[in-house]
Amino acid sequence: MGSSLLKIVVDAMGGDFAPANEVAGSIQALQEHKNRFEVILVGKEDQIRNELSRHHAETLPISVVNASEVITMEDSPTAALKQKRNSSLAVGMNLHKEGKAQAFISAGNTGAVLSASTLILGRIKGVSRPTIGAFFPSETGVCLLVDAGTNVDCRPNHLYEFAVMGSIYAKRIFKYDNPAVGLLNIGEEESKGNEVVKDAFKLLKNSPLNFLGNVEGRDILKGKVRVVVCDGFVGNAILKFGESVPSFLKAKLLAYAERSLVRKGILGLVKGALKSVFKEMDYEEHGGVPVLGVNGVSIIGHGKSTPKAIKNMILKAAEVATADVNRHIEHMLAGTVSGRQAASDTISLPAHP
Amino acid sequence: MGSSLLKIVVDAMGGDFAPANEVAGSIQALQEHKNRFEVILVGKEDQIRNELSRHHAETLPISVVNASEVITMEDSPTAALKQKRNSSLAVGMNLHKEGKAQAFISAGNTGAVLSASTLILGRIKGVSRPTIGAFFPSETGVCLLVDAGTNVDCRPNHLYEFAVMGSIYAKRIFKYDNPAVGLLNIGEEESKGNEVVKDAFKLLKNSPLNFLGNVEGRDILKGKVRVVVCDGFVGNAILKFGESVPSFLKAKLLAYAERSLVRKGILGLVKGALKSVFKEMDYEEHGGVPVLGVNGVSIIGHGKSTPKAIKNMILKAAEVATADVNRHIEHMLAGTVSGRQAASDTISLPAHP
Repeated sequence: MGSSLLKIVVDAMGGDFAPANEVAGSIQALQEHKNRFEVILVGKEDQIRNELSRHHAETLPISVVNASEVITMEDSPTAALKQKRNSSLAVGMNLHKEGKAQAFISAGNTGAVLSASTLILGRIKGVSRPTIGAFFPSETGVCLLVDAGTNVDCRPNHLYEFAVMGSIYAKRIFKYDNPAVGLLNIGEEESKGNEVVKDAFKLLKNSPLNFLGNVEGRDILKGKVRVVVCDGFVGNAILKFGESVPSFLKAKLLAYAERSLVRKGILGLVKGALKSVFKEMDYEEHGGVPVLGVNGVSIIGHGKSTPKAIKNMILKAAEVATADVNRHIEHMLAGTVSGRQAASDTISLPAHP
Repeated sequence: MGSSLLKIVVDAMGGDFAPANEVAGSIQALQEHKNRFEVILVGKEDQIRNELSRHHAETLPISVVNASEVITMEDSPTAALKQKRNSSLAVGMNLHKEGKAQAFISAGNTGAVLSASTLILGRIKGVSRPTIGAFFPSETGVCLLVDAGTNVDCRPNHLYEFAVMGSIYAKRIFKYDNPAVGLLNIGEEESKGNEVVKDAFKLLKNSPLNFLGNVEGRDILKGKVRVVVCDGFVGNAILKFGESVPSFLKAKLLAYAERSLVRKGILGLVKGALKSVFKEMDYEEHGGVPVLGVNGVSIIGHGKSTPKAIKNMILKAAEVATADVNRHIEHMLAGTVSGRQAASDTISLPAHP
């Protein structure tokens, strides 16, 4: 463990299939990407070692750190963090906080991971509220919707900060140059919406972001902008609505196919096409979602994460840890406080320390 | 015009293709449903008569009422109503108000139709804010989302009233017995969400409605409930997101097909299946949306309404006008004020006057 490789903490007890999928996914990541990073599996050591023994993992750069407690999906986030101080989540996050690892991933209780990230890592200077976004496929690429459920009541400056964090993430991780930002509203005119979005509009208009103005629900899949900003109540409703589209279409197409054998045959042929489209709507492809606005790299995955999903989360964590996302967020937010920078998408940063 | 048939006012100047589609749709409705209703076309008389002359409409029960002004899609709703007192919208709505017709339909400026409905017809006793909902297809039937964009800021009692209006509409028009109602939230637990939805939850829980509790964005297409209640900001975002799904899928499937001739051939075969599914997501099938909570029957259609859409709006207007929706709304809201009725889905009403 004394190498200079990037170290990534995996909460081995997080997901619904822990530690099996966490261990299998870590091994996949390390086998496919040699000499890029090391993995620290945190959780019940006996269970983890038992899983490891089922794979040929002896030569891989994996270490295990014991944590005797587990935060479940049913636990109340803040209460669990106080009561279970020796949980895999708390122990793992503290390893990251102490600099013994450069990133953390978990497929566990989303609220608890968010709380632990905020409480243990702390907020980036200038960020009022850390946030979690969601990735949507669109006709033109990926669209990041932020906030996706973390903050149900937002003030205008929160929406502005979401826009900054989303924009930098879209630029640094998705490599979109000068990513366009839209404010979710019920119409395109500046006069539309409630007081919060009207005031957020003004903040965004006067910012160095590439702000395209108000967008509507239809503009997400259309891919009009790369980042759509909204409060977590609206974002969560859209995210969950979107997640239900594939199974709705499958049900409708099955009902259609049941009416004749010819139809059944035709739909059998087209399965591949539909799968390819639905795959784009699949959270696993994106490797979880980052907690934006905390002093570190914390990636949250779905409880049902497969080994492949865990692998993708580890790869994403490695990418975010090396992309300086947080330093860019801090500098852009500082710029907007002390006299805004020119409306340029390139922010000059001091040399890396 | 002296008959006892139901009379329906059609705003002949409303839609993007007015008066052509309004006239053609009216004629279709009357040809397909003889002796059920009469149509009063309101708008620029010369243009309307010119359109009528292109059809064989001489024997149909159509009358024309002249209105010299037109409210356009660009007009500000309230300003237009004040300034254009001789608009087809105002003249037509007043005919309904005066009892010279039993319903009104328009494919015009939605905001202006909503304002005219509220200002000219007035609100039903007990209704604080009239509302417009949206119909979604689901795995189990139609789901009415209310409010779909009319009221961006809502108090708990507004959400409660939307639930009452939606529930009665689902029962009387869609014939769902004891329709289940859900409150849109970011989780199912009663403790979730902002203060407004928490208080609305209590109102709904103690009401005679068939309230199933909080629902999430995914429950709309799943068809968990018949009525989903939310504020107009969230509702509008979901509605517009949903409307964009078919064209997103079309674009993705076309891109998939372009990669090979075989794929192209397969997708050609499946066009019918997809069209059949997308058809369910088509506003035209439902015949516009009603303004709920006003003293009358006012149906709003999309600006791009085809003759078929206009026809369906007329049929819907006839149905709503005979279904006593408003009287049921008034009685249920009155019941909730003066000691709530037992949690029964059947509301006993005084005999029809």
